[in-house]
Amino acid sequence: MFRQLNYQIKYMSLFSFSVIAKSGKTLARAGILSTPRGIIETPVFMPVGTQATVKAMTPEEVDSTGASIILANTYHLYLRPGVEVIASSGGLHNFMRWEKPILTDSGGFQVFSLNSLRKVTDDGVVFRSHIDGSEHFFTPEKVIKIQESLGSDIIMPLDECLPYPCEYEYARNSLKRTHLWAKISRETHSSSSQMLFGIVQGGVYTDLRKESAGFMIESGFEGFSLGGLSVGEPKEDMHRVLEDIVPLLPQEKPRYLMGVGKPEDFFECITRGVDMFDCVLPTRIGRNGTLLTSRGKVVLKNSKYRLDFSPPDEECGCYLCRNYTKAYMRHLFMADEILGPRLATYHNLYFSCNLLAKIRESIKEGRFEKFKEEFLERYNSSGQ
Amino acid sequence: MFRQLNYQIKYMSLFSFSVIAKSGKTLARAGILSTPRGIIETPVFMPVGTQATVKAMTPEEVDSTGASIILANTYHLYLRPGVEVIASSGGLHNFMRWEKPILTDSGGFQVFSLNSLRKVTDDGVVFRSHIDGSEHFFTPEKVIKIQESLGSDIIMPLDECLPYPCEYEYARNSLKRTHLWAKISRETHSSSSQMLFGIVQGGVYTDLRKESAGFMIESGFEGFSLGGLSVGEPKEDMHRVLEDIVPLLPQEKPRYLMGVGKPEDFFECITRGVDMFDCVLPTRIGRNGTLLTSRGKVVLKNSKYRLDFSPPDEECGCYLCRNYTKAYMRHLFMADEILGPRLATYHNLYFSCNLLAKIRESIKEGRFEKFKEEFLERYNSSGQ
Repeated sequence: MFRQLNYQIKYMSLFSFSVIAKSGKTLARAGILSTPRGIIETPVFMPVGTQATVKAMTPEEVDSTGASIILANTYHLYLRPGVEVIASSGGLHNFMRWEKPILTDSGGFQVFSLNSLRKVTDDGVVFRSHIDGSEHFFTPEKVIKIQESLGSDIIMPLDECLPYPCEYEYARNSLKRTHLWAKISRETHSSSSQMLFGIVQGGVYTDLRKESAGFMIESGFEGFSLGGLSVGEPKEDMHRVLEDIVPLLPQEKPRYLMGVGKPEDFFECITRGVDMFDCVLPTRIGRNGTLLTSRGKVVLKNSKYRLDFSPPDEECGCYLCRNYTKAYMRHLFMADEILGPRLATYHNLYFSCNLLAKIRESIKEGRFEKFKEEFLERYNSSGQ
Repeated sequence: MFRQLNYQIKYMSLFSFSVIAKSGKTLARAGILSTPRGIIETPVFMPVGTQATVKAMTPEEVDSTGASIILANTYHLYLRPGVEVIASSGGLHNFMRWEKPILTDSGGFQVFSLNSLRKVTDDGVVFRSHIDGSEHFFTPEKVIKIQESLGSDIIMPLDECLPYPCEYEYARNSLKRTHLWAKISRETHSSSSQMLFGIVQGGVYTDLRKESAGFMIESGFEGFSLGGLSVGEPKEDMHRVLEDIVPLLPQEKPRYLMGVGKPEDFFECITRGVDMFDCVLPTRIGRNGTLLTSRGKVVLKNSKYRLDFSPPDEECGCYLCRNYTKAYMRHLFMADEILGPRLATYHNLYFSCNLLAKIRESIKEGRFEKFKEEFLERYNSSGQ
């Protein structure tokens, strides 16, 4: 008890979260998450910088998309370049030259999704590197220590990310382990300059999800991640799980929905009370030549753009849309030129961060639901 | 005769070249090539933008490396996106957003080096696309017309680029054709906003090279390209050919050595009177993780850089060297991250353009030979 109090005091001095506006009609809310490395206005989209780089972008470019925080992956960085390299360089921020906040995940998702050879016990998980097949062992303690060495600002405890579909029995047993690991992580965590979130698991099972939410709340985590969603389950299940859990979570703590980042999902999940998102979708589809625009997706290789000298999105103010034509972008992708993925990545991050900024404004101005309706009508009307 | 006079008058009004400094000891010289799209100080290195993009770079970035002119490839652009697309967009400058001068080659080099299936007659050359195998026919007239549609500032006539080694008989017959094509190109060319260079060929044979130089001079071309070098011949042959031809060329016209771009070659060829260079080397080796630095090449994947947090080149003022460490660059290349090739390309272009700027200064200040000696001693001293 004394230890927990101490912990809270250290925390509160460096991080704080407050809700500054709420929708009257839905659970949508706008907030401010203050961290030593900067303010994060929520709801927020966090670009993914898996291997200490947001693919194809310089830190200055990521910053100019409007991003206020990025995500990096503990699993990938642990394997390459390794914790020693990053710690020796003065931490992940120094290593990659990103000065704003960084959230790192626990590696749980990657260990359970990228690795076929793994062995889980209550102590931790043995897995093989997807790079060289070497064997490694993650314990909840070790994962916290790794993230302390990385020096990220918001960190996650090791958890078992369940696949979809998943038998109830397996989900229930796995959840016990995730809770045990959460408890150990909480006890291991000692850095006052890092915020530790609890990850709510439980698959698509309402009782398990509620039990997990209850456990994480009781454990006094400073924020709540909603894990194991967007893993292939029907969209209704994801919405239902959010509706089951979010109302139970304390108002004054941030809620982070892991791995979600489609424009339509931002709206649906913010409606259900989510504050933070991350997803590789904007960068991944960008590299493959698909732009997110106010009128839906634009697939740049489409032959109809061969002689189309208009900008990809007339309403977008990004460097790509202010300067380049669809015809030129099509050429870059047809000719497999690196500038194509670069510019498309930039646009999609700008679009996503900008959309979240507009959503925040709409919540503050009490017109979120109207904005949602107008945006989605137009977004779904054309494109390709 | 009247026609040629007209042509000269049109030319002279828009383009001019003057030598502003000469070495007392060698043929090294500094000059200014004025074009409607800007001044080019010589000796100059021209970054290669094969497919209407300098690989991985935005035009703003290319500009900030110090480049005053870039090269694009007629062969590639003709095949993809096609002349119609580029002409419809208002020309190559508009299409790719590069406002400074562009030099286009004739496609001769690519037709003769990338294509196994080709048939050459005096009329032109039939070849197959390396993209889809489709059959195409280049005539000297067509190649001029294509470059007029592209709107590049300095253009080249169709020529046969000889391989090395090449039999004397074949070289002599090929040269006749190259000269015929040069004559047709000269007669076809009608744009006053484009400078047409003659390409001196002739393999490694002194008599053929001299004959070719004489022919091109007599034809009144506004500049002279030295083709068919740096195609595998011993370095002594390249130097000898330069020593054979360059003294014959008129002082008041620019000399462009095609396809040469190593730091040591800049010095040796400028010593022998060359004004202009292009080469894919800086961009290509950059994409593969090798940096050109004042102390030689740095191969970023080398394990000795794992914990090396110093900049790649302490003396370089580029964005990469001012901001990133060797350890981070090594990580980017080990992890196959696009930011690696991006930053390395930028550095190598900056290094090359900057080196040429230093060479120009040294010529103007009468200390080129000393600068050459100092640079090469250091460049060859370490690295890797």
